Amino acid sequence: METNPLLDPATGHEQVEGVLKGFFERAKLRAAKVSPSYLSLWETLEQSTAGGKRVRPGILMTAYRHLGGTDIGAAARVGAAFELLHTALIIHDDVIDLDFVRRGHDNVSGVYRSLAETAGQTREAARHRGMSTGIIAGDLALTGAFRMLDTVDTDSRTRLRLAEILDEAVFASAAGELIDVDFSFSPGAPPVREILDMERLKTAVYSFEAPLQAGAVLAGADDDVVAILGDFGRDTGIAYQLVDDLLGVFGKESATGKSNLSDLREGKRTVLISHASQGPCWGELSHLIGNPDLTPEDADRARAVLTRCGARDYAQSLAEEFAARARTHLDSPAIPAPLRLVLERIVAGAVNRGR
Amino acid sequence: METNPLLDPATGHEQVEGVLKGFFERAKLRAAKVSPSYLSLWETLEQSTAGGKRVRPGILMTAYRHLGGTDIGAAARVGAAFELLHTALIIHDDVIDLDFVRRGHDNVSGVYRSLAETAGQTREAARHRGMSTGIIAGDLALTGAFRMLDTVDTDSRTRLRLAEILDEAVFASAAGELIDVDFSFSPGAPPVREILDMERLKTAVYSFEAPLQAGAVLAGADDDVVAILGDFGRDTGIAYQLVDDLLGVFGKESATGKSNLSDLREGKRTVLISHASQGPCWGELSHLIGNPDLTPEDADRARAVLTRCGARDYAQSLAEEFAARARTHLDSPAIPAPLRLVLERIVAGAVNRGR
Repeated sequence: METNPLLDPATGHEQVEGVLKGFFERAKLRAAKVSPSYLSLWETLEQSTAGGKRVRPGILMTAYRHLGGTDIGAAARVGAAFELLHTALIIHDDVIDLDFVRRGHDNVSGVYRSLAETAGQTREAARHRGMSTGIIAGDLALTGAFRMLDTVDTDSRTRLRLAEILDEAVFASAAGELIDVDFSFSPGAPPVREILDMERLKTAVYSFEAPLQAGAVLAGADDDVVAILGDFGRDTGIAYQLVDDLLGVFGKESATGKSNLSDLREGKRTVLISHASQGPCWGELSHLIGNPDLTPEDADRARAVLTRCGARDYAQSLAEEFAARARTHLDSPAIPAPLRLVLERIVAGAVNRGR
Repeated sequence: METNPLLDPATGHEQVEGVLKGFFERAKLRAAKVSPSYLSLWETLEQSTAGGKRVRPGILMTAYRHLGGTDIGAAARVGAAFELLHTALIIHDDVIDLDFVRRGHDNVSGVYRSLAETAGQTREAARHRGMSTGIIAGDLALTGAFRMLDTVDTDSRTRLRLAEILDEAVFASAAGELIDVDFSFSPGAPPVREILDMERLKTAVYSFEAPLQAGAVLAGADDDVVAILGDFGRDTGIAYQLVDDLLGVFGKESATGKSNLSDLREGKRTVLISHASQGPCWGELSHLIGNPDLTPEDADRARAVLTRCGARDYAQSLAEEFAARARTHLDSPAIPAPLRLVLERIVAGAVNRGR
């Protein structure tokens, strides 16, 4: 598995695990009173969050501590809220993408599809049952995210601002998901600018911008610090996603823990593909990208073309450009030097993954 | 259209409309800054809530006013939170049920399916696009419900209790939805007791129990009053749902505004069908119930059998039994006489609809 350069082990990982454990323990106790099947759903939901790298809580707590925050318990709760939001978004995203597997394991929909298949249901019925249960599970995780904020020990003004930030994260992610759905139904690859917009909305806001802002708000930081961290997080998040898309094609499965064929097979709209589609090599690529039966040999051919035509370099340069932009936001005297250092480590980690 | 005996026009209907209008205005302003397509999604979401009877805000505000509450603006906001929850739940329920029409109009998924079909996409792709957009829209409405509570002008302890009640409503509805999904994949009709449990969880809690409790909590009522209203709401909600299922088969479309064929065609698991499936008439019915090609003449035959075999009377008696049980909860000196009167009107309205 990929190690996680974004997560400083000293940032309260255990506290976040503890908060999530407590959340699910209470939910399971309540669910057990309703029915065994409801308890199973909550167990499946909990398992779907287990083993996550807690990137969002990690960067949130990093910002919090370096801005003078000392209530690690409160920060862990806000971090857990973002982890539950992340859980909700990926479950619903998987339903929308008809994905039943995530990182080599059945996701919630996959677990329920398998159960239905084992019970002798048709392939189509089992798929629908899996998706239906995924919709329900995502709703519970989304509700859990907002409820988690209610348990944070802080003043009501701060709590309200945290809720606004979480709301902004959902608002952006939903917009990004909508644009992504629109992409998947349009022929060809959209322009680079539109892909960057989509990735900013769908991932960068809730994964980087919002957690950093929430950490700063909880620490009582000034508005300009909150704004700077938001700008930094947005650009870092775009750089991160650009690298993620590169790793999705060029990464080693042993290092990333995920398939390097599925993005090519699905024809995922990325900057890499958008760039290639505008250039002279598209004739060699177009029959490979989005081909569900792509073989590993075909994939090697696609990778060679993407490299030869400059798409790989272009995406890598763009990631570095966004990382550099992210760093320039930190050139403000409002950002304490130790925080600047750790944020620079985070952005370096985001672009240098998988190298 | 059915008139709504549950909603006293004096209970702040206009205030609720005003709150919802403000909520969507703000969301649309934000969405317009993202993209025209995101603005369209918010417009579609708003349209999907328009013309609703606002049953949940209505009973919430009825309880609130009769328990001495005077801040109609605050109550309207809590009511609007329940209306947004209702919106979220029916959008996701429709996705799960593969329904693209509600009350004669395209629902959110239906609107986006139609757009995709017009754009020349395949039937299957258009269906998937509609469902995907429905999932996103439901997430936005669910988020809106919790965020709406943040705007209620009340003390933090009351706000927390309101959030707990809303959370309990989501928790129950998700359990009910899960059980309903399980039903739809099981052969035959489940026992009456299990159907009642499912309907209590899926509908009665969020539609009656929770709004009444929220109205009482906001009014500062004692815990025993909150508990009594919860018990009353639960039993009223079950009675309401039993009658709803009766109207789904025996109602006049001109009076109810909804098809009296679709429940039969879909083979919806109701007390009516469960009772019939246990009796000697099932042989005459089993080929009609759940037959997607059921003709109006077949439906008349099914209705005649359901009536002759006592299923209709059984369901009607059960509805009256739950209504009577609901009324007995009101026999407490803790319930002010004027509130008792109006709640008795509500439960009478719930069982006498469509007569």
